[in-house]
Amino acid sequence: MRRKLISEFIGTYFLVFAGTGAVVINELTKSLTHVGIALTFGLVVMAMIYTFGHISGAHFNPAVTLGFLTTGDIRLQEAILYIVTQVLAAIASSGSLLLMFGNVANLGATLPRFSWQQSFALEFILTFVLMIVILGSAVHGKADKSFAGVAIGATVGLEAMFGGPISGASMNPARSIGPALVSGTLEYLWIYIVATILGAIVAAIVYKILHE
Amino acid sequence: MRRKLISEFIGTYFLVFAGTGAVVINELTKSLTHVGIALTFGLVVMAMIYTFGHISGAHFNPAVTLGFLTTGDIRLQEAILYIVTQVLAAIASSGSLLLMFGNVANLGATLPRFSWQQSFALEFILTFVLMIVILGSAVHGKADKSFAGVAIGATVGLEAMFGGPISGASMNPARSIGPALVSGTLEYLWIYIVATILGAIVAAIVYKILHE
Amino acid sequence: MRRKLISEFIGTYFLVFAGTGAVVINELTKSLTHVGIALTFGLVVMAMIYTFGHISGAHFNPAVTLGFLTTGDIRLQEAILYIVTQVLAAIASSGSLLLMFGNVANLGATLPRFSWQQSFALEFILTFVLMIVILGSAVHGKADKSFAGVAIGATVGLEAMFGGPISGASMNPARSIGPALVSGTLEYLWIYIVATILGAIVAAIVYKILHE
Amino acid sequence: MRRKLISEFIGTYFLVFAGTGAVVINELTKSLTHVGIALTFGLVVMAMIYTFGHISGAHFNPAVTLGFLTTGDIRLQEAILYIVTQVLAAIASSGSLLLMFGNVANLGATLPRFSWQQSFALEFILTFVLMIVILGSAVHGKADKSFAGVAIGATVGLEAMFGGPISGASMNPARSIGPALVSGTLEYLWIYIVATILGAIVAAIVYKILHE
Repeated sequence: MRRKLISEFIGTYFLVFAGTGAVVINELTKSLTHVGIALTFGLVVMAMIYTFGHISGAHFNPAVTLGFLTTGDIRLQEAILYIVTQVLAAIASSGSLLLMFGNVANLGATLPRFSWQQSFALEFILTFVLMIVILGSAVHGKADKSFAGVAIGATVGLEAMFGGPISGASMNPARSIGPALVSGTLEYLWIYIVATILGAIVAAIVYKILHE
Repeated sequence: MRRKLISEFIGTYFLVFAGTGAVVINELTKSLTHVGIALTFGLVVMAMIYTFGHISGAHFNPAVTLGFLTTGDIRLQEAILYIVTQVLAAIASSGSLLLMFGNVANLGATLPRFSWQQSFALEFILTFVLMIVILGSAVHGKADKSFAGVAIGATVGLEAMFGGPISGASMNPARSIGPALVSGTLEYLWIYIVATILGAIVAAIVYKILHE
Repeated sequence: MRRKLISEFIGTYFLVFAGTGAVVINELTKSLTHVGIALTFGLVVMAMIYTFGHISGAHFNPAVTLGFLTTGDIRLQEAILYIVTQVLAAIASSGSLLLMFGNVANLGATLPRFSWQQSFALEFILTFVLMIVILGSAVHGKADKSFAGVAIGATVGLEAMFGGPISGASMNPARSIGPALVSGTLEYLWIYIVATILGAIVAAIVYKILHE
Repeated sequence: MRRKLISEFIGTYFLVFAGTGAVVINELTKSLTHVGIALTFGLVVMAMIYTFGHISGAHFNPAVTLGFLTTGDIRLQEAILYIVTQVLAAIASSGSLLLMFGNVANLGATLPRFSWQQSFALEFILTFVLMIVILGSAVHGKADKSFAGVAIGATVGLEAMFGGPISGASMNPARSIGPALVSGTLEYLWIYIVATILGAIVAAIVYKILHE
């Protein structure tokens, strides 16, 4: 369990460090472009899955952990430890970015570009699909599980690509809580907690119904 | 069969949601660029293949289903159910985008940039190659089938990259029918139905002749 | 043998169609950017390898075929048939682009940007490395051959990315002969035949010495 | 051992040639953009791993070799030979670029954009994560080692993407020594030697503690 939690900590820490760091550094240097930021998010998720997937399962995301709780793939106590670790790692990550770069671009906090209803709906769909991809590519009995990291990284990358300009494409409460808390951008944080968790849990329920 | 059709529905729904959503969101925010749109199309196809390929075969495309009907890899009745499901999913997807973003960029409808003859020829070639890649990488007896998702996703991505600015690089009747119907952009829709289906069927015939 | 040659024909045809088509379409629409062109070249090579590698070996390139002749992996007669097929496919591809788009951007012909000596040296190095990657990832006894398509596609993509703005990053006599002949841009064609073949043969010799 | 050192030489030579060549050629032609440079770095590392990983282990990086010395995966004498080979290869690579393109963009030398402390911290984190990914994906007993090349290439690519605009995202003393020595840009070289080696060694120690 200690190894699992350290894996979740390092994986989530670096996912948030690289992904939201890309937002911060693009604000400072105008060199990554939105395409570069989205690729950073997708690639870091893929790399962390092949690094830690065989140790902790590579959740790095409280919504995903709650999805696995819904399917029964993780026990409640373990899920709580995972989620606490993920949130702490994200906060540590945003703290590191604050120390290194100052409070730039709200440290990559996610905010709705237009209405909050639109971003809520989008985050629900994005996280629903992410959880379906995780269950279909990494859990399903007939899946070619060695490609799960490619599929999941691709999903995060493409969702960041098309959804990022609207809602920030969080899909992950921890990824939103870290920058929001440390930069003090709390107004819309609830969207990125509620919509993502709902999306993952509904996906898990749909998957369970289909496979029973 | 129920699981197969649900897989085709979710896969096609999200393929169209992400791909044409990228077109819509780029129109609204000017942040994805054409490169980002093409990458979105390629990555979503790859992710959906690793998620649903072992359940439904991951067609998501009436032209591909008709190609498999030509090779005898799917029965007629199943093919009809697949195609109806794919078209309904694409319409549902364009409807979702309309609700969320309004009628922007014709919801990503495909239109010829220059002459319709040029786009017809291009869509024929693009879908011919897509079907050849599918048969060569996912069906051929000696193929390393676990990499089919990578090969097919790459094909959709690269065809969207170079063909998109000319014809929209549909390669998929459902992907064109959804936005065309829901946004009312019907004038050139027939190209994207006829040329893509012809391309896939000719590819299937060529493949059959070669392997008999 | 018939299947092998048809595989080489379709693979080379589409490699040149997509890659040089990307150059032509970027000239017409200014939407791909150099990054999009380079990604197109890399992805099409990868997709064609997973489609035809188990049939013809997926050379698509006279320099590569001559490299394999040097290592003894192909017989002389077969090599000649491969090379004739590859060159005919490339010419057919440039002819198709001429019909569809007119003589735009010299149909993607490769030309030195600065001195010819610089481009000669670069093409030598690029093709040397491409052949080393092919031998190391697809032929070497301990290689994880299923990833050869990823490695070789990545190599073509990255060499097109950094070398393209200088020499056009041909690495492939057929890819240069097609556009040069059909568009009538013959002045520097010899570079792209001589330097690439030298690069591949020297790589094959180095590889042979190392493994004897 | 001879084969291992030749593999390290060619791999490191081409990693530095392609990666820093991308910086030089972007300076000359303004066509790659930062995104293209970062993709070049990631793809070349991946391609070289699938080409040479089964021969030399594909270090190409003195910090990585010292990380493996820390975990006990390489003996001291071999590590010294590896590091000397890597540094000589990088110098040869920068020399080749100087001959071909002149002293452009300091031959891709890494320099802090803002404070040296910031770049030192960033290089430490980037190399720490790179070494963790290497150990987790290529060494760990339960890892799906065939995907290590994908994971490590993705890590280098994404770290170059987000970290490049700040510190140059070296992660590799050899990659920094080559351009610095040949272009005479020595002032900040020590950062890229000390921070990267520290990052890799600390990662190796953390990994060892966790797995004992």
